[in-house]
Amino acid sequence: MNLKDIGEFGFIEKIASGCLLRPQNILKAIGDDAAAFTMGSDEVILLTTDMLVERVHFLRHATSGFNLGYKSLAVNLSDIAAMGGTAKEAFVSIAVPGNCSVEYLEDVYKGLKTLAREFDVNILGGDTTGSKTDLILNISVIGSVPGNEILYRDAAQPGDIVFSTGCLGDSKAGLYLILNHIAADSEELKSLFDSHILPRPYLREGRFLASHGVRAAIDVSDGLSSDLGHILKQSSVGASLYADKIPISENLRLFCGRFGFNPLEYALSGGEDYTLAGTLSRDKAEQIAHDYFETFDQPLYLIGEITDSEKAEIIFPDGQSHVMTASGWDHFKSEK
Amino acid sequence: MNLKDIGEFGFIEKIASGCLLRPQNILKAIGDDAAAFTMGSDEVILLTTDMLVERVHFLRHATSGFNLGYKSLAVNLSDIAAMGGTAKEAFVSIAVPGNCSVEYLEDVYKGLKTLAREFDVNILGGDTTGSKTDLILNISVIGSVPGNEILYRDAAQPGDIVFSTGCLGDSKAGLYLILNHIAADSEELKSLFDSHILPRPYLREGRFLASHGVRAAIDVSDGLSSDLGHILKQSSVGASLYADKIPISENLRLFCGRFGFNPLEYALSGGEDYTLAGTLSRDKAEQIAHDYFETFDQPLYLIGEITDSEKAEIIFPDGQSHVMTASGWDHFKSEK
Repeated sequence: MNLKDIGEFGFIEKIASGCLLRPQNILKAIGDDAAAFTMGSDEVILLTTDMLVERVHFLRHATSGFNLGYKSLAVNLSDIAAMGGTAKEAFVSIAVPGNCSVEYLEDVYKGLKTLAREFDVNILGGDTTGSKTDLILNISVIGSVPGNEILYRDAAQPGDIVFSTGCLGDSKAGLYLILNHIAADSEELKSLFDSHILPRPYLREGRFLASHGVRAAIDVSDGLSSDLGHILKQSSVGASLYADKIPISENLRLFCGRFGFNPLEYALSGGEDYTLAGTLSRDKAEQIAHDYFETFDQPLYLIGEITDSEKAEIIFPDGQSHVMTASGWDHFKSEK
Repeated sequence: MNLKDIGEFGFIEKIASGCLLRPQNILKAIGDDAAAFTMGSDEVILLTTDMLVERVHFLRHATSGFNLGYKSLAVNLSDIAAMGGTAKEAFVSIAVPGNCSVEYLEDVYKGLKTLAREFDVNILGGDTTGSKTDLILNISVIGSVPGNEILYRDAAQPGDIVFSTGCLGDSKAGLYLILNHIAADSEELKSLFDSHILPRPYLREGRFLASHGVRAAIDVSDGLSSDLGHILKQSSVGASLYADKIPISENLRLFCGRFGFNPLEYALSGGEDYTLAGTLSRDKAEQIAHDYFETFDQPLYLIGEITDSEKAEIIFPDGQSHVMTASGWDHFKSEK
């Protein structure tokens, strides 16, 4: 079955069910010129939007519709998480080429709805249109956050402690498996594969951190060294990360042992982990990390500190420090 | 110059200027994971999103960047207008193929900003990414409207008067000129051409109508007969339109005379006029039309009435009535 067989309205009828999860305050969802809803008046509204293009962000023949839909929404929710917000409403635009089946599109929405349900997010509308060659998805998500708890990139201060909410590099390892057609034939490889395919947005964790006074945050989409770089640049500060504090999963260590990579380089350069990284004031760090563990049964990894040097460096247990680079660290540019 | 020459951040630097027009209440615009802003607490937030895909909605070689950007935003603002809202913030996602120049993209943003400025709309963020073949634009616009003044499609009632805010069919005539490579060699043809290329959103008019108690509205994107059909279906009502009341511009009459078309068929079937059509209660119609004219120096065209028949018909001056169809009316299906 193709989209042209059932038309746009037929398609909307097919996907509308299950889109409205939280009907209170929703005046109009799918079915009018625009969606209409109210939000609490003390809350700041957040909106993020991401476009995914076939042959650029995904290969349709190698990606199930479910995984595509799930990840498309996950990356947007992750942006809301990185602001400390609560995700509320999602809007999905989709441009569909003639050779894309309705079944595939339904699977896309299944993935979208699965994640939307987990985080109580309405899918409130969007646009459906044609495309000549590639499938394109654009998702916009509105969230809200109390005005005094927004986590910006430009708020890091010298002396702050740098944190990460999860292990780093797993997603990059999963991508390596996919690009090299390596079967995920063990629990470890399967877990890395899933880290790349079905990343989890740290929404509850971001909300917790924002409400507990964390200072700055970003989601790790391009790799810790690159994304932390945005915080450093926008805050006009530097950072010293401790090599032995960077969280690396046992799965990644096994992967790196098997394929001959350096786990730390993977952790620093790996994109699409969608963990949150950021900074919190030194005097609150221990308490927040303690409360975080009590709440989520997961550690908040404290991996370094913010400096006033405007340089990013990675310090090894032997005391050697190297300039941090997009791919890990510069083996030649030693700081000592 | 190509996008890869300057990178995404170089591009954002290029286009950021002029994007923030109304900084009050804007906590964060371009430059973070999401834009953050507050809105008045009594207002309902509206969000609309539209995706435009090369070779489906436009031909890049035949469309200037300016016109593409202008129209991409116009169609979204028109959706806010059709809800009776005020447009506030716009978010632009753009997927750019390798053969698209930065100059073209800058021209796109010039068109966007020109219209945004006219209606005091911020361009608050979005996403910029690559594409293999086609240029794709997705625009989301947030607007607001007082909760008791929202214009829905499902609110028409039998006895209501049907209105249009402007002449119909001009845009379709402009498209005919473009598709048939006919030079706009007169003021009349130029005007039709512009109606298609640079449609104006009826935002002020929509706001006026909503605040003066109009009942239902839609923007005419697919053609009056088709779009009014949405109102009729969603309101479970019918309509009788009067052939001699349908507003047809002198330019369209001249065009139809020259190329051998029926002006009324063009007016009823013509898409992309982006006028507002809708209904208002009979007892308010005269007063609202009077006040509308006083305010805008343009007539509010009263073109028919809503019936409880669930049929849409067009009534000719000789008393003949025909079933209205997507392309005008059914010449065989007479109602009398």
